[in-house]
This record gives sequence, structure tokens and C-alpha cells, in this order.
Amino acid sequence: MRIVDIINKKKLGERLTKEEIEFFIFGYTKGEIPDYQASALLMAIYFKGMDTEEIADLTNAMVYSGDTVDLSAIEGIKVDKHSTGGVGDKISLIVIPLVASVGVPVAKMSGRGLGHTGGTIDKLESIEGFKVELSSEDFIKNVNTYKMAIVGQSGNLTPADKKLYALRDVTSTVDSIPLIASSIMSKKIAAGSDAIVLDVKVGSGAFMKSLEEARELAKTMVGIGKTLGRRTVAVITNMDQPLGHEVGNANEIREAIEVLSGHGAEDETEVALTIASYMAVLGGAFTDIASARKHFETIIASGEAIALLKKFVEIQGGNSEVVSKPELLPQANFHIEVKSDLEGYVAGFDAEKVGLSAMMLGAGRSSKEDVIDFAAGITLKKKMGDHVNLGDVLCVLHTNSEKTIEAERIVRSAFVISSHKPEPVKYIYEIVE
Amino acid sequence: MRIVDIINKKKLGERLTKEEIEFFIFGYTKGEIPDYQASALLMAIYFKGMDTEEIADLTNAMVYSGDTVDLSAIEGIKVDKHSTGGVGDKISLIVIPLVASVGVPVAKMSGRGLGHTGGTIDKLESIEGFKVELSSEDFIKNVNTYKMAIVGQSGNLTPADKKLYALRDVTSTVDSIPLIASSIMSKKIAAGSDAIVLDVKVGSGAFMKSLEEARELAKTMVGIGKTLGRRTVAVITNMDQPLGHEVGNANEIREAIEVLSGHGAEDETEVALTIASYMAVLGGAFTDIASARKHFETIIASGEAIALLKKFVEIQGGNSEVVSKPELLPQANFHIEVKSDLEGYVAGFDAEKVGLSAMMLGAGRSSKEDVIDFAAGITLKKKMGDHVNLGDVLCVLHTNSEKTIEAERIVRSAFVISSHKPEPVKYIYEIVE
Repeated sequence: MRIVDIINKKKLGERLTKEEIEFFIFGYTKGEIPDYQASALLMAIYFKGMDTEEIADLTNAMVYSGDTVDLSAIEGIKVDKHSTGGVGDKISLIVIPLVASVGVPVAKMSGRGLGHTGGTIDKLESIEGFKVELSSEDFIKNVNTYKMAIVGQSGNLTPADKKLYALRDVTSTVDSIPLIASSIMSKKIAAGSDAIVLDVKVGSGAFMKSLEEARELAKTMVGIGKTLGRRTVAVITNMDQPLGHEVGNANEIREAIEVLSGHGAEDETEVALTIASYMAVLGGAFTDIASARKHFETIIASGEAIALLKKFVEIQGGNSEVVSKPELLPQANFHIEVKSDLEGYVAGFDAEKVGLSAMMLGAGRSSKEDVIDFAAGITLKKKMGDHVNLGDVLCVLHTNSEKTIEAERIVRSAFVISSHKPEPVKYIYEIVE
Repeated sequence: MRIVDIINKKKLGERLTKEEIEFFIFGYTKGEIPDYQASALLMAIYFKGMDTEEIADLTNAMVYSGDTVDLSAIEGIKVDKHSTGGVGDKISLIVIPLVASVGVPVAKMSGRGLGHTGGTIDKLESIEGFKVELSSEDFIKNVNTYKMAIVGQSGNLTPADKKLYALRDVTSTVDSIPLIASSIMSKKIAAGSDAIVLDVKVGSGAFMKSLEEARELAKTMVGIGKTLGRRTVAVITNMDQPLGHEVGNANEIREAIEVLSGHGAEDETEVALTIASYMAVLGGAFTDIASARKHFETIIASGEAIALLKKFVEIQGGNSEVVSKPELLPQANFHIEVKSDLEGYVAGFDAEKVGLSAMMLGAGRSSKEDVIDFAAGITLKKKMGDHVNLGDVLCVLHTNSEKTIEAERIVRSAFVISSHKPEPVKYIYEIVE
């Protein structure tokens, strides 16, 4: 087998066999196939696509390019979730205790990565004492005992994906549905869960800008899950504005507490409950979404949900007092109000810019070496549909830096103010299963 | 400027500016742009193409990626020719003395390269004493005095093309018209002539398998020539069978002598006279093709043409006695007759296989280190349309090797014998100017 023939085959639009895909992925991971042939093949895939079977073969080869997590010692159907990424996305923090409450085990493995804010484990580390480095034994024991645990990613998971992602980034081959879908699904499958709920975000703050693209990505990932024997559902959600009001690390913990206490933002609550419900159903705790949803609403109202969050923090070694006293979370020195110089309605957002501003304030990493400032972030005071008077506070920037002019400028330009009240926002577009 | 943005632009089908193309070519030549980004861009060009201006800019950037030959000290309009490559193609050997006879200077620079047989300079070196290494001064002096000289390629001409060609070969991006056209034209333009006649071959022994492709390549190259100020004409010729009867090095010298003596094969003669006529017209010696053609027929009949070939060999230091006594050329030890085991008409050829067989006999190089056996080659006894009886000799293999079974098998399979006489072959399809 020669890689040049495989490139040629895909270039001509033919389908690749499992053997050819494995030859590519394993050879590339081992460094036997050079970057310049891999990038030519990626570009051919961008133009000619792959069918469901090819994409599943690609995903599977990436899974077996490195270590896989063995969760077989955990009882029950392990359910994972994944978001394609958005601004103010704190859904994982909310759904872990909710899903655990119905006995469905959530064994969450999470990376740090780069972005507007830290990842889920960075956010949790803004709670004093919260430990994300657990041995496999403790991780599995905690899931078996409490149905919930989170651990930072360790081991050599999907090295092919890491290497390919770095190459795609510099060769303009990121925006290919087969490549995006196999990248996400290979990581989820290598992490060992039996079922996966995908939160596919679409809008100005998401990678997918149109509903059509988001739907195609969702269908492709659900197809991979089916082919590789993982029950998979995708929820397509709105990311035309940041989710909830808080963007940052400590900020987002604070907002998760609000949602689990029953007074969270409407969009955040809606998306979190929908995803938790699908996780509960995939995990076998309910036969229908409506019953799961009803249960979650009940335990939020009763205080059981917030008590479970407290428990979660406690078992991971964190100071659980923060759950009742969020003011114990890291606080920034400066709180800068960004005021409106227009009157009208918030008609739209460039959500990406809100994230960028948060990153500039210290909330995220732009390179691996950057240190996150847990206290940095943004609180949105106005969201889509809200009326704004001249001088009204649009948002508050929390930061320990004195240089905020650029962050202020960017976040201000993220708000679209119009004289007409916009149509009400849809939080959830559709479910792909 | 970032190369990833340039890749993305081409991927989306947008046109690249001169600056972007130069950034790519010069950066890649200097090693500042890595192979993996270059190959992604090449694949995007394969899929999205380039317009005439982009292709001219690409060609021009490749010309200026290295040295260029300065022929300004030569008087008159310097005319070059180039063939896209075929089996038994000895046209250059024939046209040099013909075109020189009308006072149009031919300053030919030729590479060695790989292939079924050697290049033009290898073929000429099968003549004892023939020197292809001349100083620039001697080369220019010879052209000014005799209107003809040939020299082996020296200097660092079009390094971008060399690097890109090696990359295209291993990334399945060879078969792209903009890339083929710019590669050929950059070399011709860097070699310094004012006008160029292109012999675009089409058929089983050529890279272009269909007339449509050949026509597109011809038009693209003529377009480059026009844009970059070189008068360019393309002649699209048949390569469904080897040209003439001889394939090899000494063999082909022998056949060139026959054509210039007036008893060459019909196809070889027709193509050579057509190309020589276009060269003569581009060089300003005639205003129409018919007059040029008539002149060449006259000087072949009168013996002037063969005398000029003798002169050409002599001024390059070769033993010009071979022109009247071709038996002085290197002779192989073995002459193997390949006989037909079928009766019928030669209805077709896999010309590529004839070339491959010649290479196996020692006539060509498969790697740079290979040494050419000037005496090795093939003499075709039957060509398309010829009737064949059982046991008739199809061809004769000339070799110094005793292992010829594979070469025999391959050359035999190159002949398509049919019970029906095929339609007469067209030697020249069309002229693109």
C-alpha cells in the first residue's frame, strides 16, 4: 500500500477502505507518513468528503492510534456529554450532579486546552482545594459510589487526532465535516463511555455558523456513534449570544450554582435540562424525555440538586462552602461597567467577541503556557431582546489587570443595538438521534 | 501575509494575487514555507484551478526563483522548442539544423532527466566526441556564427519547479493543468529564448491521454507565453504509437539522419517539418508556414539539410563521419527479434510499454545514478495499420544485457493486433496559437 495511491483515490472521489484509512492513521501517528502527504490527503477529503462508513473507520482508527480508557469496572450505562464549544458554556457543571441524581454514572474526563475561558476542569479549580488529578482507581471508585467524578485527561489518548489537528490548523483543512466529526467522536469514544449526548452549537459564537452545517455535523457524529456501537444523540443549540450571563471561570461556577438553585438564566437552564434529560434517558433511568425533565425540575425546586453539587465539590476535595457562599470564589480587583452610548434593543451579538474580551481580561489561555486568572470574566447585564437606555450598563468586566481599553472596545462592539425589538430567541433548534 | 490564508483563499475558489503567489513560491524555495503547507495549496489548486493571470504569475515567480539565462548577446529572435514527452521523440535532433538553415538562431539548453531513453543531449553523446558542456561564451559564439548550439543545463534554473515537482510526485498533484503548464513554461522562459514552439503530445505514450486535456494544456501554455511576452505556438501531435521506428539513443540519431536525408518515417518527418516550420515563422524567416515547409523539403532533397547536421556535430566536437556512416554509432551485442503469434493488423499500441521495454534494455534512466547504454533500444518493424502474418517480426530489441525476457514480454504486450484494418492515423491534430 502506498499513501500516494490513497491520496489519488480520494482525490478522484472514490471511497477509502478500512485498511487504507488505518494505513494512513497508524502510519501518520508513527511518523512513517510525512505531514506533506497527510495534508494533501486532508485537502482531498475536504473537497471530496467521506461516507458514513469511511468516517466511522477514520474515527475508529484514531481511537486505536493511542490509549483508550477502560470504564468496564463502573456499573451501569456510562453517559458522557460533549459541546462543540461556545461562549459562557457551563452546561457540564450543571448536568453532572443532575444526571448523577438518577443513578446514571457520569465519568467525565476533561482536557484544559485553549479558549476564551478555561475548560470545565479549570473552572472547577477556581474552587479552593478542588482536585482534578485522581488515580484511575479513585476515579472509578467515586463514580461507582457517587455516580459522578471528573478527572483531567491523562494518558496518550487519540495521538492521531492531536497530530492531525495541529496540521489541519496550519493547512486550512479545519472546516471539513468528516474531519471535525471524527476528531470529536474519537476523543469521546477513547474516553470510554457507552452513550454520548452532543451539544452542537450554532451561531455567531460557535464554529458552525449556519443551522445547515450544524445539522450536517450532528447527523455525521450520530452516524459515527451508531456505526461504532455508542448510543448518541445531538442537541443543536443556539450560540448567537453567550449562554447565561456569566463568562469566565469563577463567574461560571457562580452561575451554575444559580441554575441548580432554581434561579438561573432561562437559556442556560433550558439547554442544561434538555441535555441532562437526554443523558438520563440514554443512561436508562427514564424512558421518555418529559419524565426526566420533570424530575430535574423537581429536584432543583426541592434543593436536592444544589445539595448534590455541594457533594460533588466535597468528594473532589474542594471547599463546598462556596456553593452556599459564592462570594468565597476568587474575586477580581476591578469591576468595570461598560455603558451603552445608544438607545434601543439588543438585537444581536458577536458572541465570539465577548469570548475574546474575556480572554484578554485573563479568563482564558491563548497559548498552553498562559496562566488563567480565575477571577477574570464578564457579566452580561443585557441580552438579546432587552431594552437599553443611553448610559445603561451593558456588561461588567471583572479583571485584575489595569489595561482594559482594548477588552472594553471589543466587548462593546459585540453588542448590536437596534431600534426594533428582535424576534424572540430559540434556545434549542432540534434534536438529531 | 500568512500562507494558511493563501491556502484558504484558493480552497474557497478565489483568485490569488501576484503578491500572494510570489510569497508562496519565494518562501517555499527558501524553505520558509514547509512542504505540508505547499502540498495543501497544490491540492487546492488541483481542485479549484487558476485563471490565465494567476498561472502567468505562478510561472513568472518560478522563473525568478533562481537563475535565468541571458541570451541577449545573440542576434535575432531566439526560438526554442519543447515536447511534453513521448516515446521515440527525436524531433529536436531534426529541427535544430533545419531551423538554423534559415538563419533563425536555436540556442538549445537541455537537461538529462529520467525516462525511457536519455534526453536530447544523451542521444547526441552517443556520437563519439560530442561535447555538451560549453562555456556561456562558446555557446553564444556558436549560435551567433552557426545559428545552432546545444548545451547541457547548468546553473540553478527554476529551483521552485524542481522542489514543487518532487512534492507533486508524492502527493498526487501532478495532473493539474495550471501546475503542468507553469512547470514547463517556467523552464522554457528561464532558458532565455524569445519564442517557443510546444509539441503537446496526446495518446497512449503521452501524459495527456485525451485531445481535450491536450488542448487545454496547449491553450494554457500559449496563454502564459502571451502574458509573459514570449511568442508561443503549440502543435498537438499524436502519441498513440512511438514516433518513427527507432527508440533508444544511438537508434534515434540514426533515424534523425534518415529524416534529414529524405527517407525518414512518414510520421516523424511530418511532425518534424511542422514544428520546424512554426519555429521558422516565429523566428521571422518566413511569413507563412507553407513557404517554410517548402523550403525545408527542398533542402532535405538537395542534401543541404544533412550537411547542416554534419556541421552541427562537427562544431560540437563530435565525429561527424557518423552522419554518412551511421554504422559507426554504438552497436549492441544482441539483436532479438520479437515475432507475432497472431495474424491481423496493428490496430493500436500501448506506446508507454514500448518505452518501458527500452528502459529495461538499458536505453534510459530510472534513477539519476543509472548509466545509459547508448546502443540499447528498439526498432519497430510494424506500426499502426500494418498487416502482420504469424511469425512476422514486430520489432527488434537491441541490448547488451542477456536478461531480456521481461522486456520482450512487455514490448509484445504493447502491440494490439486486430482482424480489422484500423482507420489511418492522424499525425497532427491541431495548432494552438
